[in-house]
Amino acid sequence: MFRVIDLSPDGKLQVRDHVEDAAPPAEGVLRWVDLQGDGQEGQSLERLREEFAFHPLAIEDCRVFDQRPKLEEYRDHLFLVTQSFAPPDTPTTSGAARVGSCDLRLYELHAFLGKDYLVTVHTGELPALEQVRERVIGNPSLLERGVDFVYYLIASRLVEANFPILDAITDELEEVEDRVLSAPDRRDLSRIFELKRRLVLMRKVLSPQRDTMVMLARRGDPRVSERSSLYFRDVHDSLVRLNESIEANRDLLGNALDAYLSAVSNRTNEIMKYLTLLSAVFLPLAFIVGFFGQNFDNLPGLPHWMGSDALMHVMVGLCVGTPIAMYLWFRLRRWI
Amino acid sequence: MFRVIDLSPDGKLQVRDHVEDAAPPAEGVLRWVDLQGDGQEGQSLERLREEFAFHPLAIEDCRVFDQRPKLEEYRDHLFLVTQSFAPPDTPTTSGAARVGSCDLRLYELHAFLGKDYLVTVHTGELPALEQVRERVIGNPSLLERGVDFVYYLIASRLVEANFPILDAITDELEEVEDRVLSAPDRRDLSRIFELKRRLVLMRKVLSPQRDTMVMLARRGDPRVSERSSLYFRDVHDSLVRLNESIEANRDLLGNALDAYLSAVSNRTNEIMKYLTLLSAVFLPLAFIVGFFGQNFDNLPGLPHWMGSDALMHVMVGLCVGTPIAMYLWFRLRRWI
Amino acid sequence: MFRVIDLSPDGKLQVRDHVEDAAPPAEGVLRWVDLQGDGQEGQSLERLREEFAFHPLAIEDCRVFDQRPKLEEYRDHLFLVTQSFAPPDTPTTSGAARVGSCDLRLYELHAFLGKDYLVTVHTGELPALEQVRERVIGNPSLLERGVDFVYYLIASRLVEANFPILDAITDELEEVEDRVLSAPDRRDLSRIFELKRRLVLMRKVLSPQRDTMVMLARRGDPRVSERSSLYFRDVHDSLVRLNESIEANRDLLGNALDAYLSAVSNRTNEIMKYLTLLSAVFLPLAFIVGFFGQNFDNLPGLPHWMGSDALMHVMVGLCVGTPIAMYLWFRLRRWI
Amino acid sequence: MFRVIDLSPDGKLQVRDHVEDAAPPAEGVLRWVDLQGDGQEGQSLERLREEFAFHPLAIEDCRVFDQRPKLEEYRDHLFLVTQSFAPPDTPTTSGAARVGSCDLRLYELHAFLGKDYLVTVHTGELPALEQVRERVIGNPSLLERGVDFVYYLIASRLVEANFPILDAITDELEEVEDRVLSAPDRRDLSRIFELKRRLVLMRKVLSPQRDTMVMLARRGDPRVSERSSLYFRDVHDSLVRLNESIEANRDLLGNALDAYLSAVSNRTNEIMKYLTLLSAVFLPLAFIVGFFGQNFDNLPGLPHWMGSDALMHVMVGLCVGTPIAMYLWFRLRRWI
Amino acid sequence: MFRVIDLSPDGKLQVRDHVEDAAPPAEGVLRWVDLQGDGQEGQSLERLREEFAFHPLAIEDCRVFDQRPKLEEYRDHLFLVTQSFAPPDTPTTSGAARVGSCDLRLYELHAFLGKDYLVTVHTGELPALEQVRERVIGNPSLLERGVDFVYYLIASRLVEANFPILDAITDELEEVEDRVLSAPDRRDLSRIFELKRRLVLMRKVLSPQRDTMVMLARRGDPRVSERSSLYFRDVHDSLVRLNESIEANRDLLGNALDAYLSAVSNRTNEIMKYLTLLSAVFLPLAFIVGFFGQNFDNLPGLPHWMGSDALMHVMVGLCVGTPIAMYLWFRLRRWI
Repeated sequence: MFRVIDLSPDGKLQVRDHVEDAAPPAEGVLRWVDLQGDGQEGQSLERLREEFAFHPLAIEDCRVFDQRPKLEEYRDHLFLVTQSFAPPDTPTTSGAARVGSCDLRLYELHAFLGKDYLVTVHTGELPALEQVRERVIGNPSLLERGVDFVYYLIASRLVEANFPILDAITDELEEVEDRVLSAPDRRDLSRIFELKRRLVLMRKVLSPQRDTMVMLARRGDPRVSERSSLYFRDVHDSLVRLNESIEANRDLLGNALDAYLSAVSNRTNEIMKYLTLLSAVFLPLAFIVGFFGQNFDNLPGLPHWMGSDALMHVMVGLCVGTPIAMYLWFRLRRWI
Repeated sequence: MFRVIDLSPDGKLQVRDHVEDAAPPAEGVLRWVDLQGDGQEGQSLERLREEFAFHPLAIEDCRVFDQRPKLEEYRDHLFLVTQSFAPPDTPTTSGAARVGSCDLRLYELHAFLGKDYLVTVHTGELPALEQVRERVIGNPSLLERGVDFVYYLIASRLVEANFPILDAITDELEEVEDRVLSAPDRRDLSRIFELKRRLVLMRKVLSPQRDTMVMLARRGDPRVSERSSLYFRDVHDSLVRLNESIEANRDLLGNALDAYLSAVSNRTNEIMKYLTLLSAVFLPLAFIVGFFGQNFDNLPGLPHWMGSDALMHVMVGLCVGTPIAMYLWFRLRRWI
Repeated sequence: MFRVIDLSPDGKLQVRDHVEDAAPPAEGVLRWVDLQGDGQEGQSLERLREEFAFHPLAIEDCRVFDQRPKLEEYRDHLFLVTQSFAPPDTPTTSGAARVGSCDLRLYELHAFLGKDYLVTVHTGELPALEQVRERVIGNPSLLERGVDFVYYLIASRLVEANFPILDAITDELEEVEDRVLSAPDRRDLSRIFELKRRLVLMRKVLSPQRDTMVMLARRGDPRVSERSSLYFRDVHDSLVRLNESIEANRDLLGNALDAYLSAVSNRTNEIMKYLTLLSAVFLPLAFIVGFFGQNFDNLPGLPHWMGSDALMHVMVGLCVGTPIAMYLWFRLRRWI
Repeated sequence: MFRVIDLSPDGKLQVRDHVEDAAPPAEGVLRWVDLQGDGQEGQSLERLREEFAFHPLAIEDCRVFDQRPKLEEYRDHLFLVTQSFAPPDTPTTSGAARVGSCDLRLYELHAFLGKDYLVTVHTGELPALEQVRERVIGNPSLLERGVDFVYYLIASRLVEANFPILDAITDELEEVEDRVLSAPDRRDLSRIFELKRRLVLMRKVLSPQRDTMVMLARRGDPRVSERSSLYFRDVHDSLVRLNESIEANRDLLGNALDAYLSAVSNRTNEIMKYLTLLSAVFLPLAFIVGFFGQNFDNLPGLPHWMGSDALMHVMVGLCVGTPIAMYLWFRLRRWI
Repeated sequence: MFRVIDLSPDGKLQVRDHVEDAAPPAEGVLRWVDLQGDGQEGQSLERLREEFAFHPLAIEDCRVFDQRPKLEEYRDHLFLVTQSFAPPDTPTTSGAARVGSCDLRLYELHAFLGKDYLVTVHTGELPALEQVRERVIGNPSLLERGVDFVYYLIASRLVEANFPILDAITDELEEVEDRVLSAPDRRDLSRIFELKRRLVLMRKVLSPQRDTMVMLARRGDPRVSERSSLYFRDVHDSLVRLNESIEANRDLLGNALDAYLSAVSNRTNEIMKYLTLLSAVFLPLAFIVGFFGQNFDNLPGLPHWMGSDALMHVMVGLCVGTPIAMYLWFRLRRWI
């Protein structure tokens, strides 16, 4: 379904959705064409290719969910792929798709930016784009600033949407690290790995996006006005911050993993200590009672003691004294 | 065996396989010469060198299975080496050869790209090249776009063939990680190492290939038309995506390895815990029954108990109570 | 609250705090406008935007605590964000805010640097800025050197303030490493992780700051005099040293972590050795006394020994000799 | 000892070894001077310095075994240091010297490349150089291509000599990894470290050599003809492949090390399991026989059983049943 | 204390130490001013600043022990900071100071290099500088080559002094690795960490120094003659070699650490094996003698055996046979 917004030179805004409007605008008119695909948009893409003379390779890219942001320069337009993450609990009915083994979801926007037109192509509904569309309809002066400015508005919202997701990862990372240091659990390890998968994916997507924006921010391209380039510099700045946060989080993830592994080692130590303590107490005791359980008729030198209380007291004394001595020695060696 | 396809200026296509056709085409004619080697193609290469005046070093490179993609510029032609992977189960009768200790197989294509000719040299059959050959014979307009476009068609198919192989690695990596987290096995470790070997090899091959394609995508070379350079940019883009996926997979491979090592540690812990539990139960019991197994005539202070039921009950009580007490204490310390 | 310092061409200094002075200075006058925010400075920022024609994006950046130093060039002024750390025990009433999970605090200064004006914006009181303000009021010749020199004075103090903080980290790192090598403790691990968090944060902040200063040190910008650029080079040099120290500390942090992990392993070894020693002594003893505790009527071949002293002496000899033999064997194998 | 080969303009080759020939050639003559040192070549070097006006620093470099390949540009000649490895079993009588703690041996060649002369300086015999010398004497047309081409021939052979050495490392690495996965041994660890030492040394030597060759391959230097630069590009390509193989091998070396460490952990696990199994069987048995070894006159409630077969059977049953029960429980928990 | 060496145009050398000579030389005269500080050189530095018009920031740098080599360009002179290491056992009375937690000591030289003057500033005595001073006094032709050449002589000696220190680290590293592989000790770990601290410090100091020298080696600066730049290239080359050795040593340090950690694990294994062996021998024995120690009146089915030699022999046979069987089984499983 095509949704077209035209701004005529006299500042009048027109909102239409006829297929015929999916074409380059008349002289002096600024036009934004939005194509929201539903999986069967092949014909619509074909129409765009014919009307705007878009390159077959760019149209080909619009057909597939691409997973790599890029900017490609063609003779009279730029082709842009922008991506953004949605939290794991985003309803699947929206335009966000799952990628890879990570539970994050991904929005993807394809755009053709010409001098006087912006064509956006996407599958499903993009909240960021809808919001900009409403603002543009309510405030024509936004479109008056140029179609590049409209693209900035969308790209900016898409990029900003990554901040809460990365913040959530940071928070969970700290939480996991704290938990692991106090009471490590096998599930924490799965959690750490899931966080790492998310960071790997975010870096894979947001790192090339940074390069894309720096190309728009660099003044000189005829499709981007000098005024707009300042705004794209701002988006680039946000992406740099996102990428630095991702790197910092990856560094800290090592902390959580080291904490887990060392916690497991420590636990081994603790169990070993208890086992050794047990053995230290009961192995000597077993010897003592075994000693007096031997079937000698009498112990030489102390035959008359055998039935006496004295030997009995010695035995009981040893049975009480040995554990105490062991315990004290352990304390002395600082093992418990 | 030489296989030659000629496109004369009037759009007529000729397919031949005479040795004499392995020469630069007449003015206005576009020619694709394919030499499929069988290990004894020395004479054919020599003929190419003489007819086309190819550099001896390039001809030398055609003789050996090279393992490094590259682009070399000579005065009037480019020499290109392109590689691609085939899955481990590819039949060895094809042109794919095993490399290194990894079970992936490798295709290799050598090509000379001139203004009006394309010479491709390879050992064994390359599926990607055969497909393009059939398409060109069926559709002469493809060759009409230039010999550089024909080379793009082959290179593009070679590069795309790597995606399913990398996807298979990604899938297996996730599978191994899941398996290791639930029930680690010594064979998983071998599997992880095999996957790492594959990734190391893929990076070694696909990373220089990226540089090769960016040189073709950069406009300006007289052998590559501006129109074709857009297509090579697309191949370059695929290679960038492949390389990013390789990096991401290498990151995730660390997960699987850490999971395995931590699983081994955890298992040690679990066994240790059981051993300690066993000792905690039976060492005290051994002491108790040993104590009452001593050969004292009578225990002082309680001689009349010796034969009594009371002492007997105390003993049985201790034998039952000690394990229970130990068990409760272990629960309290959260060891089981 | 605006605080304005003017230097008229005749060298007279004027200190005022009227809102009306928050405007570009008259010809020949150098002006420093300082806006100390309190969370409700929206109107003041709006006034700056109108009077100085600052870009909305820069004004937007002034509103939020940004966490990324940068330099942005606008047509007739530079927009600068500088950050600096304060030690963990800085009172929260100052302008320092906590960031992330680390217990360091952060100062942030926004500045607009024009040809004849400097506008500084910050939340809460910045000690570095207050000191420079007092020095400028006491010594007008400092402002005479240009507003860029005043900015240098502030930036220099902000940067220098990081040295004692990094030195404290270095000291603590060495202390932890020493302690871990002699007597490792679970709390040392938390300490190591806290130090790593600090280093990660410091690198995230100070690494882009380095790039900012190198841009000011590079001669050529009309807002920075050649004389001042030498001073900014000095600040840049300090930042390079800070970053190198951070890297060196990160390297050494690995030492502390390795020391901790190896200490845990060593402790396991020591406990194991003790347990083995215990078992080596008492398991044979248990066998010996068990042997003589059997209910055979008489031991064949030595029936007449059963009640004799000889067998008794053998038994006692074994009970004494076995531990000694075990001990000697352990020494021989260098286990204790 | 100087060995001089002259090619006069009329294509006649002259081989001499007079000291007087160690001088710049006459106009139109191409000259290759080879100085094979024996540790006392100080005077010969001095003669070279005087006759050719070589820089004292370059002559100084010729005196010492240098361990760093480089290319230095002087006014009218290039000074080149090239290195190559020889396998560990190379006889020490050759020009190969041991370096560092690794058992590889190193060849080193110093060369001065002028417009019409090539001076090579080395200690001991270099097989690569001898082979080229023989080929040149047998085939004057090689020298006709220029002294730079002669240098290419030597450098090419030196570089190619590294391939079999690196291949041997790769093979041994795979062998070690396989062995470690099946039956790890303490000597494998020493082997892994030795391989790592070799790779570290090879990278240290071959990585700067790559930069040297790229400078010769870049067209423009008056001492290197355009035709020869194509050949140096080929040597550079070999060096790039060598360096990539070194990197790949370093990656795989991590595999072998991880395999070893995990094998040690697994072995600990296996031993622990056996110990636990032993304890699980015999600790209960010890309790059972201890229980019936107590000196109660009669067990209350079952006095008439004491001498009976029934109790006897219960005891024997427990002694047989307990190990079986333990074994089954272990299988259930998948511990054995 | 100032020490001045003048070379007048007629080649006469004058050595003086009047304060008045600490000033720019007369036309045609080359002057080297050396200021050896003692902690109270504030006034002398002030004099330099006034006479030579040095920048206050450079003078400021001379006051503090700086820990970062650099080259700063001022209008008519260069300001250079060079550093070099001294071995740990250098007497503290010299100019070498301890830095950080590492036991290496550091020399630091500040120099101002003008067209016709060299001013060197340092605290304490620098052996490298003293040696050059003596050589210059003995051989005026050295100063005749220019003040930049004198600076080269000093810098060269400072840099060369690092080689034996790094070699000592390499030797010790290999020694530690060998020792750890045969008989690891807790002190080896401290030693490894100390070596790492040294390498981290050396890299921090020598890596920026490399950049400094490459700036002097690059021809074009009016203060460095083309002839001297060749010499600085040689110093740069030494620094590159030092840095590569540092990197290689860092790589090998990982070996030593891995060897230590794996040795600890192996030791755990060995102790465990011994403990298991002990248990395997004595737990069955304890059962056997316990079995025959039970208080049954007679063992059913074999009452007449009770006092017989047969049962006795069975028992003794079990006591001898069980350990042998266990031992054989352990050998079979390759545990001992």
